[in-house]
Amino acid sequence: MKDRKLLMIPGPIEFTPEVLRAMGMDTTSHVAPNFIEVFATALERLREVFLAPSGQPFVAAGSGTLAMDMAAANLIEPGDKALVVNHGVFGDRFGEILERYGAEVTHLRGPVPGDVPTVDEIEAALNENDYQMMTITHVDTSTAVVADVEALASLGQEHGALVVVDGVCSVAGEELRQEAWSVDLALTASQKAIGVPPGLALVVAGPRAMETFRKRKAPVVNYYADWTKWLPIMEAYEAREPSYFGTPPVNLIWALNVSLGQILDEGMDARFERHRNVSTAVKAAVTALGMAQVPVSGDKAATTLTAPYFPDGVDRSLLKHVSQAGVILAGGLHPEIKERYFRIGHMGVVNGSDVRATIGAIEHGLAQAGYAFEEGAGLAAAQEVLAGT
Amino acid sequence: MKDRKLLMIPGPIEFTPEVLRAMGMDTTSHVAPNFIEVFATALERLREVFLAPSGQPFVAAGSGTLAMDMAAANLIEPGDKALVVNHGVFGDRFGEILERYGAEVTHLRGPVPGDVPTVDEIEAALNENDYQMMTITHVDTSTAVVADVEALASLGQEHGALVVVDGVCSVAGEELRQEAWSVDLALTASQKAIGVPPGLALVVAGPRAMETFRKRKAPVVNYYADWTKWLPIMEAYEAREPSYFGTPPVNLIWALNVSLGQILDEGMDARFERHRNVSTAVKAAVTALGMAQVPVSGDKAATTLTAPYFPDGVDRSLLKHVSQAGVILAGGLHPEIKERYFRIGHMGVVNGSDVRATIGAIEHGLAQAGYAFEEGAGLAAAQEVLAGT
Repeated sequence: MKDRKLLMIPGPIEFTPEVLRAMGMDTTSHVAPNFIEVFATALERLREVFLAPSGQPFVAAGSGTLAMDMAAANLIEPGDKALVVNHGVFGDRFGEILERYGAEVTHLRGPVPGDVPTVDEIEAALNENDYQMMTITHVDTSTAVVADVEALASLGQEHGALVVVDGVCSVAGEELRQEAWSVDLALTASQKAIGVPPGLALVVAGPRAMETFRKRKAPVVNYYADWTKWLPIMEAYEAREPSYFGTPPVNLIWALNVSLGQILDEGMDARFERHRNVSTAVKAAVTALGMAQVPVSGDKAATTLTAPYFPDGVDRSLLKHVSQAGVILAGGLHPEIKERYFRIGHMGVVNGSDVRATIGAIEHGLAQAGYAFEEGAGLAAAQEVLAGT
Repeated sequence: MKDRKLLMIPGPIEFTPEVLRAMGMDTTSHVAPNFIEVFATALERLREVFLAPSGQPFVAAGSGTLAMDMAAANLIEPGDKALVVNHGVFGDRFGEILERYGAEVTHLRGPVPGDVPTVDEIEAALNENDYQMMTITHVDTSTAVVADVEALASLGQEHGALVVVDGVCSVAGEELRQEAWSVDLALTASQKAIGVPPGLALVVAGPRAMETFRKRKAPVVNYYADWTKWLPIMEAYEAREPSYFGTPPVNLIWALNVSLGQILDEGMDARFERHRNVSTAVKAAVTALGMAQVPVSGDKAATTLTAPYFPDGVDRSLLKHVSQAGVILAGGLHPEIKERYFRIGHMGVVNGSDVRATIGAIEHGLAQAGYAFEEGAGLAAAQEVLAGT
């Protein structure tokens, strides 16, 4: 019997065989012509996947937190005011990072975990102060809450703020149209919907972000994240010329280029639609099994992951039973409700079979946990949605 | 005919099939029990490979520059004095990084590229000022110069300086005994002698370094590099407990654990000795072919790479001819002499066949470049050394 478990957490996700083969290829030189061509192509494809034709991509060895750090270190000057649209742990984290570089940070939170501040509240805050930056966590991995980036970003720009979107749990899964939606910078990490094993920080900075960077007066204090170092490197690779600052993670960049090619072959619109369908199927199953979700309403729920509350009488040990049935899920992350919920990631190449396996494993786990429910109800609900797609 | 070229640059290097297979394995969760066990084992093995039984290892997605940045950001406070023992580009870089975090940096350089400052000069500098930190580039990748870390580190400690060794082109290849040699912190990157594709920053901090970190008064300004965040994570993984700050690069850490196991199976003493022998063979061949080297004398030449000057009448185009014969070498990197020399990396699993292929390809290239030399002299010289081992 196959003993590998299906990985249905909000990153790392399941990767394609082609991506994994690129990971395991014999490494070549970071300045070999064939690698330069791959890196250049990956940079061009990032613009297409972020839907940011005027954007400047940055690719560096690191995690999503490095991508957030890069945005803050290069764009914040001491004393800048920043508004953080916060619906979970990663809003808190962005605030902490911005403060590290001298920003005065205001957090706008929803009334409870799972909720968001209203557009009116955000507009009022933007009217009250001149914010240099507004950050939005598109999908907070800790709560599965999605922000209305389309509405908020243009509002931020109108009020003169640079709009930075943490797209770690969204880019290439949740619908995000960086340039059309007035987003000045979007960032993600490789192991989420972009479909590459962890190890890459990915940032696409639009013209207003690059202008803010070029006009900054205070030096960038973080050396490794400094665009002064990275920008000439990204420009050189895209011009098909050898260059060096830090050795790029050759195998991860090969894998990135493969995955971006697969994403663009599917097409961004089709990909967003598929993520919506898979999400609808998982959420229908969760509801049919009698579980509530952390997001307080459907319009605030992300399509890249689902965060169900454990039913009454069931606790975290459910995840062990689910794992015994062959599927790895994630526990809670938001400190206020950490022990009360779990998380199912469904990003990237996730398909109907993965959904069926996952819901089946959850039903198995719930039965093991002694929870009374109509067996098969989750599977039937998922199946009905999947059949319609 | 196989079309992959042999990679004989000073990183990335040739990797073992087992390491590459680990790179391409289906990724699992960063908190799955079997991954936690691997990460814990890798941390334990790092202590053995660095020969630092009391050291605290840090493993993060990044490049060698992140490892340098981590050392500086966590150990330097504004106004600290730092002495940089400098024999190339990476000495300059360490100085620049230290200044970024507020250090007053003094560089001690040799009289020409390829030379080192004398021990007396370094001792005089240490007597003249109270330095909080002394950095030593063990092997400067730009010049192939090796520092006498054993002599310098104890001198630094005696004068009260924290001794930080940039071991990017040395750890697990050039002999380095962190704890026995009084080194407070050593660092490297995965793609060098440690034998893993690029993407990991590796740091082992000894007790004096950790004490300096714990007693610091100024906050760490670099968020991603901050040990306040990473230390609990490293401690948790080693205690076989799940933990999270940034998602660890699962596949790279699998590969790291495999490579560290292979390194320890060979044994550190045997590995240092093998690197010395391979280096002797390559350098004998280079000399037999009439080429001088950047290091001004044999005792200042590293065993992990060789930096020959092009012979009269031969320029950088030699490397194209060598590549056509199937071997990738690296150009010069030191700005003063960049166009006058090239670099041959010979770290990690490099064997006699790799040496023969490399010297043969160089002879082919020299002939193509119209250089007059006794054909086969390089191969014969290498062969003689290899036969004796």
